[in-house]
Parts: sequence; structure tokens; C-alpha cells
Amino acid sequence: MPVRFGYLGLTMTKAKLHTTAVILAAGLGTRMKSSLPKAMHRLGNRPMITHLIETAKQIFDDVVVVVGPDMPELERATQPYRTVVQSERLGTGHAAKMAESLFGDGDVAILYADNPLITAQTMHRLLDARRSGASLSLLGMRPSDPGKYGRLIEENGHVLRIVEYKDATEAERKIGLCNAGVMCADANDFRRWLSELGNNNAQGEYYLTDVVEMAARSGQVLCVEAPEEELAGVNSRAELARAEATLQQRMRQAAMDGGVTLVAPETVFFSADTQISQDVVIEPNVFFGPGVKIASGSVIRAFSHLEGCTVGEGAMIGPYARLRPGTHCATNSHVGNFVELKNVELGTGAKANHLTYLGDASIGAGTNVGAGTITCNYDGVFKHRTVIGERTFIGSNSILVAPVEIGDDALVAAGSVITENVSATALALGRARQCEKPGRGLAIKHALKAKKEQG
Amino acid sequence: MPVRFGYLGLTMTKAKLHTTAVILAAGLGTRMKSSLPKAMHRLGNRPMITHLIETAKQIFDDVVVVVGPDMPELERATQPYRTVVQSERLGTGHAAKMAESLFGDGDVAILYADNPLITAQTMHRLLDARRSGASLSLLGMRPSDPGKYGRLIEENGHVLRIVEYKDATEAERKIGLCNAGVMCADANDFRRWLSELGNNNAQGEYYLTDVVEMAARSGQVLCVEAPEEELAGVNSRAELARAEATLQQRMRQAAMDGGVTLVAPETVFFSADTQISQDVVIEPNVFFGPGVKIASGSVIRAFSHLEGCTVGEGAMIGPYARLRPGTHCATNSHVGNFVELKNVELGTGAKANHLTYLGDASIGAGTNVGAGTITCNYDGVFKHRTVIGERTFIGSNSILVAPVEIGDDALVAAGSVITENVSATALALGRARQCEKPGRGLAIKHALKAKKEQG
Amino acid sequence: MPVRFGYLGLTMTKAKLHTTAVILAAGLGTRMKSSLPKAMHRLGNRPMITHLIETAKQIFDDVVVVVGPDMPELERATQPYRTVVQSERLGTGHAAKMAESLFGDGDVAILYADNPLITAQTMHRLLDARRSGASLSLLGMRPSDPGKYGRLIEENGHVLRIVEYKDATEAERKIGLCNAGVMCADANDFRRWLSELGNNNAQGEYYLTDVVEMAARSGQVLCVEAPEEELAGVNSRAELARAEATLQQRMRQAAMDGGVTLVAPETVFFSADTQISQDVVIEPNVFFGPGVKIASGSVIRAFSHLEGCTVGEGAMIGPYARLRPGTHCATNSHVGNFVELKNVELGTGAKANHLTYLGDASIGAGTNVGAGTITCNYDGVFKHRTVIGERTFIGSNSILVAPVEIGDDALVAAGSVITENVSATALALGRARQCEKPGRGLAIKHALKAKKEQG
Repeated sequence: MPVRFGYLGLTMTKAKLHTTAVILAAGLGTRMKSSLPKAMHRLGNRPMITHLIETAKQIFDDVVVVVGPDMPELERATQPYRTVVQSERLGTGHAAKMAESLFGDGDVAILYADNPLITAQTMHRLLDARRSGASLSLLGMRPSDPGKYGRLIEENGHVLRIVEYKDATEAERKIGLCNAGVMCADANDFRRWLSELGNNNAQGEYYLTDVVEMAARSGQVLCVEAPEEELAGVNSRAELARAEATLQQRMRQAAMDGGVTLVAPETVFFSADTQISQDVVIEPNVFFGPGVKIASGSVIRAFSHLEGCTVGEGAMIGPYARLRPGTHCATNSHVGNFVELKNVELGTGAKANHLTYLGDASIGAGTNVGAGTITCNYDGVFKHRTVIGERTFIGSNSILVAPVEIGDDALVAAGSVITENVSATALALGRARQCEKPGRGLAIKHALKAKKEQG
Repeated sequence: MPVRFGYLGLTMTKAKLHTTAVILAAGLGTRMKSSLPKAMHRLGNRPMITHLIETAKQIFDDVVVVVGPDMPELERATQPYRTVVQSERLGTGHAAKMAESLFGDGDVAILYADNPLITAQTMHRLLDARRSGASLSLLGMRPSDPGKYGRLIEENGHVLRIVEYKDATEAERKIGLCNAGVMCADANDFRRWLSELGNNNAQGEYYLTDVVEMAARSGQVLCVEAPEEELAGVNSRAELARAEATLQQRMRQAAMDGGVTLVAPETVFFSADTQISQDVVIEPNVFFGPGVKIASGSVIRAFSHLEGCTVGEGAMIGPYARLRPGTHCATNSHVGNFVELKNVELGTGAKANHLTYLGDASIGAGTNVGAGTITCNYDGVFKHRTVIGERTFIGSNSILVAPVEIGDDALVAAGSVITENVSATALALGRARQCEKPGRGLAIKHALKAKKEQG
Repeated sequence: MPVRFGYLGLTMTKAKLHTTAVILAAGLGTRMKSSLPKAMHRLGNRPMITHLIETAKQIFDDVVVVVGPDMPELERATQPYRTVVQSERLGTGHAAKMAESLFGDGDVAILYADNPLITAQTMHRLLDARRSGASLSLLGMRPSDPGKYGRLIEENGHVLRIVEYKDATEAERKIGLCNAGVMCADANDFRRWLSELGNNNAQGEYYLTDVVEMAARSGQVLCVEAPEEELAGVNSRAELARAEATLQQRMRQAAMDGGVTLVAPETVFFSADTQISQDVVIEPNVFFGPGVKIASGSVIRAFSHLEGCTVGEGAMIGPYARLRPGTHCATNSHVGNFVELKNVELGTGAKANHLTYLGDASIGAGTNVGAGTITCNYDGVFKHRTVIGERTFIGSNSILVAPVEIGDDALVAAGSVITENVSATALALGRARQCEKPGRGLAIKHALKAKKEQG
């Protein structure tokens, strides 16, 4: 079974009551210095919001996303889940309140789009802690540099309140346990607490953290600790890069645990949905875009770039191979250097080893595509298909002007321009005859040099 | 505004008196095991000496470089600044003395070509400390491993002297503050101290560090601390690689702070003069040679290699694109995989997406250059230009033998060899007709196999 | 002299008595999740077993490898050394016993295929310690996380016994010195101890570690300490990747110590047998497969991939150059981007700079191979050679159908298909004439667009 990074075999008991994850994603991300909504920045070739939704849906029955105004691409990315728009930026408490009509009747967790790497296990533990009798459960962490995080004030294992760094005493600042913002409680409790939130502070905002003290007054608040790298926020490009590194490290470890050889793990970049089977060897500097699936025993050589493709058993890909979406390389097929395949079915044992562009093509089993072969799939307006049969030999530097078909066992002579179909077993030629002008090669060189000397 | 690594917006007050930076660059760098002068080894695709000069000229009015004999490439690299030659290798004090006629009348700082990463801020602090009433200011650092560095002996916040490691007591060796060698004083003081330097030591050399004790006798010596990574010397290839890593880390952080997405920062290599605008996305494994400027909203895909080029807004470059000097890719242009552009103007929205070499060419707006297109710009002696109009369609695997012009809206058929100009709106062809020999393809294969079986 | 990673100039005194290294390599490596025997997994493009054999043969007179049943590829890899098969998996003591008839009369060291990075220096120290009068010498290490390693119980500098973690007291668990498994003793002593080993334990296996206590009873057991990274075992893909990183780090350091510039050392991947001379510059992201030798003063540019080739002095390779086995690039030759050379002799100063495939060819000195040139070396059954003379000019996009010869000073016109030999100094052409159909280019475009609008 291939390693699937997004779905690590976790199976969890869901509660009987309907559960809802509310993801706050309205942030503009000023520190990102970007015109893109923060939640749409990508990790593992997938928007941060999608990471959270994919994880949350393993644990929660429903997902609701709070977006900002004018974020159509974010609204599209959350489908099929519902969104609510927070038109004014009045704080996290206000954002959560926007979604309260969609809280349902069961437990509700409030998550943040800029904490995209929380695992399903951690979400599950948060929910479990809530159900163990707590009025509210929340996530805490112990960062190596606690800095300006709010600190969790505990007594007898229960959280009493969150103290913001600027309001904290020296003793409180020494507390290592910090607030990660994520919390879980009963929907009706949340509604009541949110209605009681005030905005009597310097910014005039409604802070969700104030809910914690309310919850502590009406019951027990439990902290669930998780590693810093799961909970560290993404507020700048540098933090985005660090989160990407964390995610890549998780995926590399999962791949190696699954029996994949990564010669230099730190140089291999996966997408969140990459699937790779046992006994695949991946050389240094390989990039996996979205939608790649690699079967057992194949080798992905250095400097290859794959997206939206499948690679069959025992196939050899690269170095410098580029497989683009819609490409399927069958068992024991070979794709060599400086070869681009787009929307191509490459048959069993077929080879395209050197400096080739195949687009919108199917290549039969056992066919050999010579160096420099190019399919002309585009006429400036339409795309057309090239269909090549089995056991054919396409001579080097051939041009196949689509739409065109080459029959089984045919042979195309090197350097031919093929504009019409070629019958099975035929030899097709489309090239000029060679002629020679004795002495003329050297004469041209001498003439050019003489011209240069004259200036 | 694009991120410009070399000029981070620093504006500093210059003193009224003329200031001079003297850079000692005569070292051969024996431990580099190189025929190149040490100061000419490169960081961020720029010689170490150039880093120091570029930084020093932001703070000092004049720069003087002390070079060794027979270092013409180093003398060229320091232009327009003056050099003096140290013919004999008699130590740092002797090297500094070589330049004393060029010290001027104001403050003089002595810098080292093998400390290339000192920042303008640190140079400024050095100068400021000198002006605060010190007879001499110097740079110190606290290395994680102080090892055999000279230690700074201080009293009441003033440096008394430098004790070399081999002469230090056990107690002195426990001092963490180490000498970085860089110092600043009044020109006339320096001249006097240098004239008093002796060479009564095992090597028979004149040590600049001996100046410190003289300065301490005639006034206060102040230490300005700076991070180890700024001051660590470059004396071997391994130290060169570490300095390169420090520089790259600075540039990556500056890029991300400026709103650039680096998917995997540690795999992106900048040159010291790279300029990148906000909302550019850079995929893993991209190399920026000297002279690159990237406009906002463009994407540089994996495995691309750029030097001496500009990329316009919204352009898509790569993967595996190589842009060489003199290339300008206009707004929304596309350069795809295994494509090399040298000295090319690629027009707005123009595309060259697959396996193409364009050299010395201009490509009009909206033109599509098919896969495998090659400009023959070189006849063995001269280089010639190819001029392609707007909205043309260059069929795949076309050969454009320069000098040649293709008019607007022209169409070149796939596989054509174009040796003469093509008129606007014309169709140009230069290829052989296809013919077919039934059954001959399979017959050839059978014959070859039969031959093989016979051995 | 080039840096040779495998042979770091170590010369050691061999003892008079015949010495034997016994390498236990029968492990399947279940945690590798692989169908390959563990010892055949590769580091630096060489099986782990080969690393051990190459190192051991510098110190020991003979090498014997204990393999598992049905491991033909492992038996081939150990040649010319002898193998014995351990048919049943009854523990390390049992494995060693399989080889006892091949122990010889002198000292015997027992090594493990999954500790492939032990250095010759460490093996030598192990042998020396044994000869200093010890009944047995063994390797120990102080891991940063001692975890579940067996601890060495010492008294007065002699090892008394090894205590397994599960049997250790709290005090014993605090011992940092851990057993690395490797040991050395006299052959006859080993035979006697092995015959006395019992399997009275939960697994019913014979443990080689039990030998230590026997040796301590009959004499002194000495521990030789070595760094953790030399001795850390390789039992999973993640541990394999860590060992690869250790090996690469060693080779990068050796290269830089030898005067090679690595712009970004962590992105350059060597093979165990790579040889690189002084003043070579290697840009980021270069991959060296097996069998590469690079001469002084050459530059290997970014994204290049070399295997089985030699590069002469002052040559420029890359970026994006792929040199395949059998390729020799002579002094001052140039290989540019997207160029593949397989089994090619590229002459002095010859150039192949753009988008070219040369296979089974020799290219004379001073020849210029134009962009897009392709040798057709394969007819589907046989491979044929292309021989190009000196100072020839091969026009762009030429196709050279092998077997074919091009004489000195010849000129091949761009876009020619060359199927017959070309005489020296001749001009060869094989391409169609250009013709033009006025207005037809734009007419075709309009027709296509009209068709599209009609749907």
C-alpha cells in the first residue's frame, strides 16, 4: 500500500452528537505582504485552509469557515463546506460569533487558518478532553522561546485563565505553557460566552481568549499540550517557509517509514497528496507537485519534476524528466533526460529517453521514441492528439503533426515531418536528401574569417 | 519596491572629516589551496573584496586596498578605488603601513578582505565608537568556540590590550570576548603607532594588534561587539562555504521579509545583487546568477537558472528554464522547460515553452514559439539576430537561420528551415513531403534482428 | 593530486600474522521494508557491504562475508572475497560461527554490514588495542541518546561485561559508554568462545556479546571509543538517509580541504569513488554518480549530473549537463545546458552547448556542435558510432545517422539529416528549400478561430 501523507491510517471514534469545526480564516495577513488572503498561501502545494479542512473532516462532522470580505478564491477553496463572511475586523471573538448560527448542537472547536499543521490526533485529543467532563478544552504548547505568547495560568491541572504577556507579572512570564488559541466547548456554552464578550480594551476588539475565564467559572478548563511545530502560527513568509519545512519533514519521514529510499531526504519535495509505494528509490532533488502516485520498484532519478501523473512498477524516470498532468507511465517504461510528457499514456516498456516533447499522445507498449521527437499538438487554437501504436520506432528528431496516427510496428525515419497517418508496419519518410559541395565548408569558414579581419 | 540585498535602505550620518577604509587584501590564502588571490574568491557571485568595498563605501568617503604583488585581477576588481602593493609579507602592521600615505586626515578603519560579511551597521558603530572620544575603537566577538583567538583584556569597559592565545594565562583563556582584528582611529595616530611597531617576535613580523596597547596608553580603547557570523574569517574552502551560507541566509530572510514566497528557502541561491519584488513565488532549487531583477506576481519554478536578466510582472518561468544575460521577459510571458534564452527580448504574453534555444533574438508580443525551435545565431565567426514579429506562430522544431526576420501574424510550418525573411501574414514552409513504403518498417526490423542473431 | 574519498592516504603497518575481517551481512533488514538484502542498500552509490569491504581490506589481509540464503546479488558484490551462508537465523554468535573455518590463524575482527561507515583508522585502532595484550578489543561509543544500547561495564579501564539495557540497573543505565558490537580477538580464542556460547534466552539465539564476559575471564578486554556517527547502525530507510548524510558530509569536507570550491556543499552529492582536483568550482545542485574524475581548473555548473566520465582541465560543464558513462571531455571543452553525452570523446576545446544528444561518438578538437544536434546511434537493434573530425561546424538541429563520419573542417548546414559520410572541408546539406504563401499564415489563423467560435 502506498504511503499517503494525508491519511495516515487514523481511525477515530466519532461522538454521537454532531461536531463542528469552525475555522477562522478572515485574516489578510499583512505581514505576508501579499495580495492573497493568508489562508490561501500554500504548504505542500495545497492552501493552508485545505490542510485544516482535510484534517478537521477526519474528526468533525461539519466544517464552517469564517472568511473576510472579497475573498472569492478562499470561498471556492472551502467547498463543499459553508462559509460566513466577517465584514468588520473586530477580533477573534467577533469572528467566531459570525458563525454561531452554524455551530449546531454538539461540540464546537475553534481553529485558525494560520495554524495549518495541527494533526488529526491533536484535534481528537482536544475533543476527548472536552468530553471527559470539561466545560472547555484548549490547546497549549511549550515553545522553545515563549516570547510574547499569552501564558496559561493553571491550578490543580485546570486552566484558570490566560494572561497576556503585556499584563503578566514576572513570575507569570516564567510559565512555559503558552496559549495556542484553539479551543473546544459545547455549542450553546460558546453562544452564551460569545454574547457576554466585551470589547473594553485598547483595540476595541472582542477577544476569544476571554472565553476561557468564563468557562473556568462554569466548570473545568483542560489544556491539551501539543508540540510547538504543530501549533506555531504562520504570519510571515519566513514562518510559512518554516511550516513548509515541518510538513516536508513529516512527509519524508512517513515515506521512509513506508520503505521508500530517499537518498537525500532534505532535497525531495512532496505535495500533501503524493502517494509512493515501497521500494521506490528517489534520488536527490526531486519535486512532486500535486496528484502524483508512484508504484513499487520504480526509480525517480535526480532533478525530476512530476505533477498530476502516475508511474507504474519498475519504471525509470529521469534524471531531468518532467511529467505533467494527465500522464501515465506504465510498468517498466522509461522517461529520460530533458523529456516532457503532458497528458500522455506511455505504454508498458515504452521509452522516450532524450530531449523529447510529447503532448496529448498515447504511445503503445514497446515503442521507442527517438531523441528530439516532438509532437505538434497545438495549432495556435486547438489541441490535437497523436496516437502511436505498439512496437513502433520513431526515429530521432521526428515531428509528429497532430492529429496523426502511427500504426503498430511502423518505422519513422529520423528527421521526418509526419503530417499524415502512417500504416502499420510501414516505413515513413519525410526528409530531404543529403548533397555535398566539396571544399565549400572550409571556403565558407575562410570567407567569414576574412570578413572579420576586415572589420 | 523590490528587495535589494546590497542596499537595505540604510542611511547614515557621515562625519565632516574625510574618512577612509583601508582593506588588507594581500593574502594568498594558502589554506584555500588555490591559484586565485584569497580576496577574489566569491560569495553570492561577487568577489569577497567587492562585498567589503560595497559595504565600506556606504560608510566611508574613501577606500584603499592593500594588494599583494602580481594580483592584476584583484586590482581590476577594486576600481575605481586605489590600491597599494605590499611586496613583502611582513605582517598586518606592515600591510597597513603601505597605505599610510593614503590615510587622509580623518578617521581610518582597517578592514580585512577575509572578513567580507561585516555589515554597514557594524562599520557605522565602529566609527561612532571612535568619535565618542576613544583613541581607538575595535571590533570584538564572542565565538561559540573561542579556540585560539586573541582575547580582549578589559577594565572598566575599556580595552587594555589583546593577549594572544599562546601567551594567555588559564584565567585569560576563559575570557569569551575575542579580537576580530578590525579597528578604527585617527589617521595621524595610526601613522605614529605604525612607525613605532616592532617585529621582535618569532616570525619577525609587524603585528597590527600591537597598536591596541599603544592606543590604550594614549587614551581609551572601546570594543564594539558584533555577531560571530559577521566577523568569522574566511581562510579555507570550508570557511568560504560557511560564509556563503551566512550570506544566503541573510538574503533569503530579506526576500521573505519583503513578501517573496520561498517554498524551500535553503534551496534557493541568490547573488548579492538580485532584486525580487513582492508576491513573487520561487519554487525549490532556483539559482540566481548576477544581475537578475524579478517583477511582482511572477513565478519562478523549480530548477531554473537565471543570470543577467529581467522578468516582468506575472511572467511564468520554468521549471528548468535558463535565462542568460541580456534577456528580458516581458509581462505575462512564459518560458517553459528545457528552454534557453540568451540576449532575447521576449514580448508581452509571448511563449517559448518547450526544448527551445533562442539566442540574440527579439520575439514580438503574443507570439508562440513552438517546441524544439532553434535560432542559428552563430555561423562560426559572427553572431546574428533573429527578429520575430507579433502574434506569429513558429511551428515546432523550426530552425531560424539568422540574420532573419519573421513578419507579424506570420506562420512558420513545423519542421521548417527558415533562411530567408518571411513576410507579415505569410505561411512559410521549408520541409520535405512525407512518403510511405508499405511493410518496409517491419521488414527493416526483421532484417536487423536476423543480423543480430547471426552475430 | 585529486581528492579520492575512498583512499585518504592512510598507510598502516600490518601485523605479521594473517588477519581476517568477518562481516556479518545475513540480515534481511525487515525495518527497511525492502526486497533487497539490507547490506545491498546503497550509500554514496555503493552497497553498504562494499564500503565495509573497501575499508576492511586496507587493514586486514582477508575478508569473509556471512550472507543469508538466496542473496545472489550480495554474493556477487563481495567478490573476490569468500562468503559463507547462514541458513538459519540463530543470532550473531551463530552467524560468526558459520565463518570459523575461514578465520585463519591470526587476529579476527567481527564487523557488521549495517555499520558501514567505520573508518580504516578505527579498524586499525581496534587491531592495535587487541595486540597491546588484550584477549579481546571492542568498539564502544557514547551516543547523544544512549537509549536501549547495551552498556559497557568497566573496571580500571578494562571491560568486564556488557549489560543489556533491559537487564541493567538504574545506575548501569546511567553509563554513557555503549556497545557497538564490533570486536577483535585471536582466531582460536574466538573458536573456543563460540563453541561455548549458549542460547538459553527468550529468543533462543546465540549472542556474540556473551563472548565479552568469556574474554574478560581469560584476559583483559579493552574498549576502543569511536564517534557515534561512525558506529550508528542502519536498520531503516531513515537511518540509511542519516548514514548517507554522514558520508556526504565527510566527502564534502575532504573535497574542500583539497582545494575544491563547493558554493553550497549541502547540495552537492558525491559517490564514494568521485575524484576531484584542486581549484575545481562546483556550483549548487550537482550530482556525481559512480566513476567520475574531474581535473583541475574546471567548473561544474548548477544542476549537472555526471557518472562514469572524466572532465579535463579548464572544461566548463553545465548548467544542466548530463555526462553519462564512457564520456571523456578533454581540456577546455564545453558542455552546455540540456546536453546529454553518452560514451563520447569530446576533443580539446570542442563545444556542445545547447539541447544536444551525442551518443557513441567522437568529436574532434575545436569542433562546434550546434544547438539541437542529435546522433541517431540506435537503429532499434544495434548501436553505431558517429565520428566527427577536427574544426568542423555542425549546424543546429542536424541529425547524424550513425554509422557516419564527418571529415575535418567540414560544415554541416543547419537542419540537415546526414546519412552518408561527409568529406573533409566539404559543405553538406540535407534539407528542403523554403517557400512562402503570402497571406496564408493569417488566413489559417482566422479559419481556426472561426471554427472555434462555431464550437
